[in-house]
Amino acid sequence: MDIVEEVLNGSRLALSRAITAVENEYDNAVEIMQRLYPHTGRAHVIGITGPPGAGKSTLTDKLAKEYRRRGKTIGIVAVDPTSPFSGGAILGDRIRMNELTLDEGVFIRSMGTRGSLGGLSRKTAETVKIMDAAGKDIIFIETVGVGQSEVDIVKAADTTLVVLVPGLGDDIQAIKAGILEIGDIFAINKADREGVERLNIEIEMMLDLNPERVDWRPPVKRAIANRDEGTVELLDVIEEHITHLTQSGMLKKKRTERTKNELLAMLDEQIGRYVLQKVVSNGQFDDLIMQVQDRKNDPYSVVKQILNTVLK
Amino acid sequence: MDIVEEVLNGSRLALSRAITAVENEYDNAVEIMQRLYPHTGRAHVIGITGPPGAGKSTLTDKLAKEYRRRGKTIGIVAVDPTSPFSGGAILGDRIRMNELTLDEGVFIRSMGTRGSLGGLSRKTAETVKIMDAAGKDIIFIETVGVGQSEVDIVKAADTTLVVLVPGLGDDIQAIKAGILEIGDIFAINKADREGVERLNIEIEMMLDLNPERVDWRPPVKRAIANRDEGTVELLDVIEEHITHLTQSGMLKKKRTERTKNELLAMLDEQIGRYVLQKVVSNGQFDDLIMQVQDRKNDPYSVVKQILNTVLK
Repeated sequence: MDIVEEVLNGSRLALSRAITAVENEYDNAVEIMQRLYPHTGRAHVIGITGPPGAGKSTLTDKLAKEYRRRGKTIGIVAVDPTSPFSGGAILGDRIRMNELTLDEGVFIRSMGTRGSLGGLSRKTAETVKIMDAAGKDIIFIETVGVGQSEVDIVKAADTTLVVLVPGLGDDIQAIKAGILEIGDIFAINKADREGVERLNIEIEMMLDLNPERVDWRPPVKRAIANRDEGTVELLDVIEEHITHLTQSGMLKKKRTERTKNELLAMLDEQIGRYVLQKVVSNGQFDDLIMQVQDRKNDPYSVVKQILNTVLK
Repeated sequence: MDIVEEVLNGSRLALSRAITAVENEYDNAVEIMQRLYPHTGRAHVIGITGPPGAGKSTLTDKLAKEYRRRGKTIGIVAVDPTSPFSGGAILGDRIRMNELTLDEGVFIRSMGTRGSLGGLSRKTAETVKIMDAAGKDIIFIETVGVGQSEVDIVKAADTTLVVLVPGLGDDIQAIKAGILEIGDIFAINKADREGVERLNIEIEMMLDLNPERVDWRPPVKRAIANRDEGTVELLDVIEEHITHLTQSGMLKKKRTERTKNELLAMLDEQIGRYVLQKVVSNGQFDDLIMQVQDRKNDPYSVVKQILNTVLK
């Protein structure tokens, strides 16, 4: 059996190796993805994002356990766009999840940038697809931060959970505005802390101001993840969202949009490589850089000139 | 006089309008940039980044004032990749800087995403160039967050100051690792807080682990920006870095590298637009999306097919 067949047959080792192949762009990566692709589309993908310190890992941990109790198999992709590390369950918070790692029904993978952030959201999406093809029912994408890269990464999810926490101060407000539009569900974690009421009201107010969500008003739920409080309720709401997506036809719409964006991103990346190879690798580009550098030419004219040599 | 001549003659109104033209991609934007470009390269650009709550705006404020005392003119570009708002000095923290805004020698501009993050770092770099051509001696780029988008934005700077603050918890450690490599100088703000020693040691330890910095060991300085403590010392270190860059030839090297990256980013963006126009705008792309969506085709084959129609 080759690696693709082994992944489809549920081999954890093959799953891990397939992800590594995609992550490191081994020669067989595209073939693996091409052959796995027809087997994707069955898993429900849940994105979990929010500011540092919100307890996303713990919450993911508890949700995963609750899904296990309900008989589902789980994949977790923990993405840290600020970390250069990738690989197994070695990244920071993932250590907490050692109970889960002993469970054969759970597969955890951490991903960092390895220098190429442009590709990180694509690689995350591909990792999700590999886990999907391997038969995982529920796949969590957990991201560490709140920047645009995290938003891009979470775009591979069907349901996005934004985790907030009381008392993180004013700058967090700005962040909240940025991730507001991607949140299908808001979880206020560490809900025993002071400021929970205020945060709850603020979120609801922001949701009131958002005119786009007519079909699904994002619920705001409280939890204390490290005591496993609120997990069941949160998971029920996630399930409600899944039902809503399916019944309203939104799931298909969302996934078509995602397919489109993934194709565009792949096009972008491939074309970038082509240009790099065709234009940048020869000495001509260095000359052009120096012309611009010395103000003998301007960047806009140079770019136009290069485009003429590359595009049909 | 047209807008370019007015910018070069120091008109604040023209400066503001030129930035707006670039930000909104008005028809005259490229022409403005082409004509201003020969007048750029004189300002020293200082990037200021760090986690939310580190007090970056206050610190920028104080550094700007100290530079004013030393007779320099100032431009400040405050970039918030998580905010959809752009325009004048209206963004959150910028309100603090009202003292500065009354100073004719200071020009402040806030920038948000307006939906197009891909272009934000380019637009920031172009705003810096416009301020540079307008004769500002020192230009600050201040970013709100710590994600990859902020790192990209700060790449337009000659000197990058990373602002950290004691006691932000463990998740912040991960962020620090991500921005470590871009920091030329580290400022520990709110240095009267508990944990300052520990943070200082941690930064120094991380710097010890970084083998790339043989020519310039990033200094770690303490400040309490809201009391204006440590500003002069910080600014002296910035000036030392500028001297180091100039004398070692690093400034030229760094700027050549930046020119190269800016050209590549522009190429990328232009090609993306071309593809969007040529391929995506016609109905054929929708068919391909549905084929992929229905698993009748895979994304990798579709991308290859499209590339053949676009590239020479």
